Amino acid sequence: MAITVVGSVAFDTVETPSGRKERCLAGAATYFSLAASFFTDVRVIAVVGEDFGASEQAVFDAREIDTTGIQHAPGKTFFWQGSYLENLNEARTLQTDLNVFAGFEPKIPDAYRDSQFLFLANIDPVLQRRVREATPHAKLVAGDTMNYWIKDHKPALLEVLKGLDILLINDTETRMLAGNSNLVLAARAVMEMGPRMLVVKHGEYGATLFHKAIPGAPDSRTFKTPAFPLEQVTDPTGAGDSFGGGFFGYLASQRELTPGVFRRAMFYGSVMGSFTVERFGTERLQQLTREEIDHRFNLFRELTHLD
Amino acid sequence: MAITVVGSVAFDTVETPSGRKERCLAGAATYFSLAASFFTDVRVIAVVGEDFGASEQAVFDAREIDTTGIQHAPGKTFFWQGSYLENLNEARTLQTDLNVFAGFEPKIPDAYRDSQFLFLANIDPVLQRRVREATPHAKLVAGDTMNYWIKDHKPALLEVLKGLDILLINDTETRMLAGNSNLVLAARAVMEMGPRMLVVKHGEYGATLFHKAIPGAPDSRTFKTPAFPLEQVTDPTGAGDSFGGGFFGYLASQRELTPGVFRRAMFYGSVMGSFTVERFGTERLQQLTREEIDHRFNLFRELTHLD
Repeated sequence: MAITVVGSVAFDTVETPSGRKERCLAGAATYFSLAASFFTDVRVIAVVGEDFGASEQAVFDAREIDTTGIQHAPGKTFFWQGSYLENLNEARTLQTDLNVFAGFEPKIPDAYRDSQFLFLANIDPVLQRRVREATPHAKLVAGDTMNYWIKDHKPALLEVLKGLDILLINDTETRMLAGNSNLVLAARAVMEMGPRMLVVKHGEYGATLFHKAIPGAPDSRTFKTPAFPLEQVTDPTGAGDSFGGGFFGYLASQRELTPGVFRRAMFYGSVMGSFTVERFGTERLQQLTREEIDHRFNLFRELTHLD
Repeated sequence: MAITVVGSVAFDTVETPSGRKERCLAGAATYFSLAASFFTDVRVIAVVGEDFGASEQAVFDAREIDTTGIQHAPGKTFFWQGSYLENLNEARTLQTDLNVFAGFEPKIPDAYRDSQFLFLANIDPVLQRRVREATPHAKLVAGDTMNYWIKDHKPALLEVLKGLDILLINDTETRMLAGNSNLVLAARAVMEMGPRMLVVKHGEYGATLFHKAIPGAPDSRTFKTPAFPLEQVTDPTGAGDSFGGGFFGYLASQRELTPGVFRRAMFYGSVMGSFTVERFGTERLQQLTREEIDHRFNLFRELTHLD
């Protein structure tokens, strides 16, 4: 089944202990789409500027991603510059130029309207909500957010949460949103705000899938996955969005959404995140094969399973 | 097979967001022994003062732990006071009174000499080394350490590492000891210092077992376990020592140390750590049953395994 994703397409300049890279093709929707494209058809809604040219378009085309919904606007594409020199787990933002993103009005192409899987990547919750409302027939809706929206745009975010089946969010954001320092209780409180499932991302430590309590069996569907151990982390940018793409892409590729499918989706999410951070920007995703993904999935199973 | 453990028996006064508890029976050797006693026979080497009375002795007796090697010295037992009010993941030490521990000279009772499993809990590496040298016939030797010894007593610690099969250590300590910020590379560097296996503890995120590289299959024996999700963390003190007790206790209970046994030992370690933090000090371990342990082990398998 096809996924529609709305989010940012961007150029990133990144400094990490491994070096510096200028203007990598990046943005949440780019990482998500590339990762998800290994599992299912992907349709993107985003906006780019005049500096988004044939070579950038070719990256999406190579993965057969539908870019009908990418608007081309006068001006420059969203630009972000960050540094991981002090802390590989958290970026220090050096520059953010919204550029064409400042006036972004998501439009849903008619050809996207039958998408049953909708992913609202990390953008202004007002826009997330607009896209959600324009796709009432979506069967499964997932979304991402970040501390900025939780702190300064909470009412708008709470409206979005009501329309989500699954929220992807990190540890700190879960605690912040719920106002509770215990992660299990915080996750439960966030699910009371709307989503029936929560994927809490722990960065280099993996992720946890929480499911709304079923009376009598409250913990029966919690699922934990560690992160794949890597000898080289070149650039952590996009790990979470790639996790989202692997997770949601795998779900959309399956006929039935059984508990076992959600577990495997968590593993595919971890695997896709682990590939992304091996190189700068989306470089690794651009050169990846499905064989490599399945090989790592199997290796990951070996190093986490008792038998 | 019996385990001999050398380490501290202490009284702790602890403040956490759940409350304050005065003079809990604690110390690395206490947590370790209680946790390991659910799997095998345990023999302790430690020192206590005149304030260690019948009720404290009864805690060890109830678990049939051999305390022949606990010396009784004039003065007071080791005392530690700490607070987790600001950060549940890291204690702030408010007071440390070594008391009788300052003059501790470990003595190995003759009845302990056939122990084939030796655990050197977190104490002065000079003492760890002395105990290690006095038990040359031990079949499997594991040890723990902490940042203090790494920073200020590194030469003595390096001597201990040469005599260890397995080192238990946390993330930060692994990176500090190796001088490498990548955990996989740091773990490999630490194994070059002696131990053929490393258990890196990630606190609330679980643990990773690293194994010395086998040519051609470098990652084949890495094993990752998340932590068991808990709704209530009352007092994190002793989680790592209880992990050690579950891990090493289970190993000592098995006839053959196969890769599968090491994996299950990691799970039992996580399970024992998860019980300990539910209450203050060793309270939860004192009231635990083997049935509860196996129940949680099975639940833990369910929430980490794909099928």
